[in-house]
Amino acid sequence: MLNIVEFGIRNNEYYCLIHFKIKQELVPNDLQNINPPDPIKNKFSHKGVILSGRGPIWFYGFLIHFYHPTKFIAIYDPRLNGAVVIESHTLEYKLGDLVPINTL
Amino acid sequence: MLNIVEFGIRNNEYYCLIHFKIKQELVPNDLQNINPPDPIKNKFSHKGVILSGRGPIWFYGFLIHFYHPTKFIAIYDPRLNGAVVIESHTLEYKLGDLVPINTL
Repeated sequence: MLNIVEFGIRNNEYYCLIHFKIKQELVPNDLQNINPPDPIKNKFSHKGVILSGRGPIWFYGFLIHFYHPTKFIAIYDPRLNGAVVIESHTLEYKLGDLVPINTL
Repeated sequence: MLNIVEFGIRNNEYYCLIHFKIKQELVPNDLQNINPPDPIKNKFSHKGVILSGRGPIWFYGFLIHFYHPTKFIAIYDPRLNGAVVIESHTLEYKLGDLVPINTL
């Protein structure tokens, strides 16, 4: 159960990039048992979060709610070569900003 | 600018179903100018919200953040014939519940 989704994290100065990989078909109830990387334990609670990975929109929804307390959340869009800021509690990043990511 | 995204709403006793249709290619900065249906004006602030439509994940992310104060949020998944609860502030709907929707 623990390994349905694998998470990788990569920190830089401004944000934590969280990449997920779904290992087998995800069903809605699995959301009860998934533990995304904890911002406090992993020392990115003062930064923003960028989410990346292939999965259903409701899985993204779960992650967006989970990371709501972080500084900002952006969603990586491979068509845009960057991540789109969808919420922010800081003036440095505002709604609709595109955060360039060159190294995914 | 106002008509890049069309929203339709349909209320029942338990939730408001919000369906969107993107009329032309959406760019990240458009998020600054989009006004989704207001829960108070449209009298669904005491209910949950179900989101449905075809669009980028970051557009869903924007909506999820926008509707964070509502009772619960679920995302419609046509493969599941229902909507998956991704966050809830009520005991009646819990994370990972599938809300059946027969009439989309």
